[in-house]
Amino acid sequence: MAKLFIPGPIDVSKETFAAMSRPMIGHRGSEFEALYASTQPVLQELGGTTRPFFLSTSSAWGIMEASLKNLCAKKVLTLCCGAFSDKWFSVAKSMGLAADKIQVEWGEAISPEAVRAKLEEGGFDLVTLIHNETSTGVMNDVAGIAKVVKSFPGVLFVVDAVSSFSAVPIAMDELGIDVLLAGVQKALALPPGLTVFACSQDALERAEGMPNRGYYFDFIEFAKNAAQNNTPSTPAISLIFGLQHILGVIAAEGVKNRYARHAANNAMIHEWGKRRGFKNFAPEGRQSVSLTCFHTPAGFNQSAFIKTLNSKHGFAINGGYGKIKGLTFRISNMGNETPATMQELIDAMDDVLG
Amino acid sequence: MAKLFIPGPIDVSKETFAAMSRPMIGHRGSEFEALYASTQPVLQELGGTTRPFFLSTSSAWGIMEASLKNLCAKKVLTLCCGAFSDKWFSVAKSMGLAADKIQVEWGEAISPEAVRAKLEEGGFDLVTLIHNETSTGVMNDVAGIAKVVKSFPGVLFVVDAVSSFSAVPIAMDELGIDVLLAGVQKALALPPGLTVFACSQDALERAEGMPNRGYYFDFIEFAKNAAQNNTPSTPAISLIFGLQHILGVIAAEGVKNRYARHAANNAMIHEWGKRRGFKNFAPEGRQSVSLTCFHTPAGFNQSAFIKTLNSKHGFAINGGYGKIKGLTFRISNMGNETPATMQELIDAMDDVLG
Repeated sequence: MAKLFIPGPIDVSKETFAAMSRPMIGHRGSEFEALYASTQPVLQELGGTTRPFFLSTSSAWGIMEASLKNLCAKKVLTLCCGAFSDKWFSVAKSMGLAADKIQVEWGEAISPEAVRAKLEEGGFDLVTLIHNETSTGVMNDVAGIAKVVKSFPGVLFVVDAVSSFSAVPIAMDELGIDVLLAGVQKALALPPGLTVFACSQDALERAEGMPNRGYYFDFIEFAKNAAQNNTPSTPAISLIFGLQHILGVIAAEGVKNRYARHAANNAMIHEWGKRRGFKNFAPEGRQSVSLTCFHTPAGFNQSAFIKTLNSKHGFAINGGYGKIKGLTFRISNMGNETPATMQELIDAMDDVLG
Repeated sequence: MAKLFIPGPIDVSKETFAAMSRPMIGHRGSEFEALYASTQPVLQELGGTTRPFFLSTSSAWGIMEASLKNLCAKKVLTLCCGAFSDKWFSVAKSMGLAADKIQVEWGEAISPEAVRAKLEEGGFDLVTLIHNETSTGVMNDVAGIAKVVKSFPGVLFVVDAVSSFSAVPIAMDELGIDVLLAGVQKALALPPGLTVFACSQDALERAEGMPNRGYYFDFIEFAKNAAQNNTPSTPAISLIFGLQHILGVIAAEGVKNRYARHAANNAMIHEWGKRRGFKNFAPEGRQSVSLTCFHTPAGFNQSAFIKTLNSKHGFAINGGYGKIKGLTFRISNMGNETPATMQELIDAMDDVLG
């Protein structure tokens, strides 16, 4: 089994697995409540918010869909720039919602001014953005877009920070983000199966008035239970033990040091790409710092490169996603990686390339 | 931390945690597909079905709610006999569905003839049953109720086997169950966070025609992905490694031996209750074999009993759920327990009672 440098799930440390192997506890009691409460301070620091974080036993799509269900009373604008952000539009359609989109070419970022122009058409009450589009390695201008969205009263702003959370600073409260969500199998370096998210007061007020929200993903149920440090349904207890562990690791490292480490690791891969002649798929200035997506050069046997890297060196990188599969390849530098472990990967890639 | 004899989550073995600590793999590739495929034969044997099992990254409520969303086009009849089955009715209402119920006193079972009388009123296209109502220790007559439901064409039958799956035989195909679902933190002795479920062809055909199903819990998406041994959204990979392990343990034990062991463990607790003067909350003939719910006798200091059992012996049992909290207490015999480990619990309870 190869060590994963794919953009999630990524390598999980022995210490995290040990934390996840703590004896099971009941979830309706003080032990679980203490566990839940212990996750809040660092999650809030990472999200730049004083709002409580909710723990959803689901992957991120559950909360991405739930954000539409809980918050879209009129029409949603989805900002589409890659496989995952494009899909958010089709999910809105699959729910029977009124939805419109801004669609840019994969590899491009969403322009705040385009968002302004679209919102000026009127009728929208919700905007969805993927901060870091994992399929293309583009990191969108969340601050610029937030500023635009916030200038339209009654329009709420949902940000998927699945592959940016804990890799770069996010200022939920300052930017006026209404729902901030993240999976745990990306920069938090846990196995998948849990989504953390926070809601603004405006989001909860909107949700409260929405009919037929159901139960499992009802934001109001999450808020009621979070007030008691608990979850509406039986939580993924082992993953929350793991979350508690990794948040402790992050606190010990210091979030600023963590951000700097991700930036340094990422720069090493960019540097390697330059040296080997691989061009970044994302434009200068809008490149993710948690993963890198490279163009596959004409004539380059990417499939053989990835296979040999795996079989000879035991490292897995990814050969592109969706319609750019084969045309791009992606390397993650998220989680627990260090300059030393990134160098191991780089040496291995150089060895394969010869 | 006490060893759990509460009716889920329950004690998880070191070997299961070791399986869950296998290095992470990507979920869009042959390694994951092999993992997924490996879970099917034993799940199908336990469920009495040739249908594929779907793996949902959620707790059971996700699929309980999804069954309504995917299958209720007209009106659902919820069979209510305890905290969890009662809640299924309120979840249907929270979704804005037309819903009616049969409500019996907690501690009683659902009568097939009552189901017949209700369905004869007409207008229903779905019935929900909790096989083993975990809050009361009542095991409903799933075969008798299935026979009634199946005599009404166009009425689909959803069975929650959360706390009975792998503890007693379930004959999905023979009984004509349309959705069979189970959490993994009960008799499968895994940490919570994953729900396994299977759908009949009729269920999938009904789902296909339902508008606005969304994405995360869309049965058709599950079916499409299962055909490729995969899941619609990022799966809880570690829990699936754990599932693979425990299904191997079950195959090695033999499912009939497993059922016999659960029955023997359960009989020990019933015997203990008789000897100590505790009356079963569930009626004779409809008592669960995976957990036991006892009446709290007048004047019995149940809270002190449970606390001392925990502090002196390190065993956790449960002090009742919902509106019968304090009036009942519950003991699980699910999962990996043996007559020897059940005897340890019994000796400890006898020690505390004096």
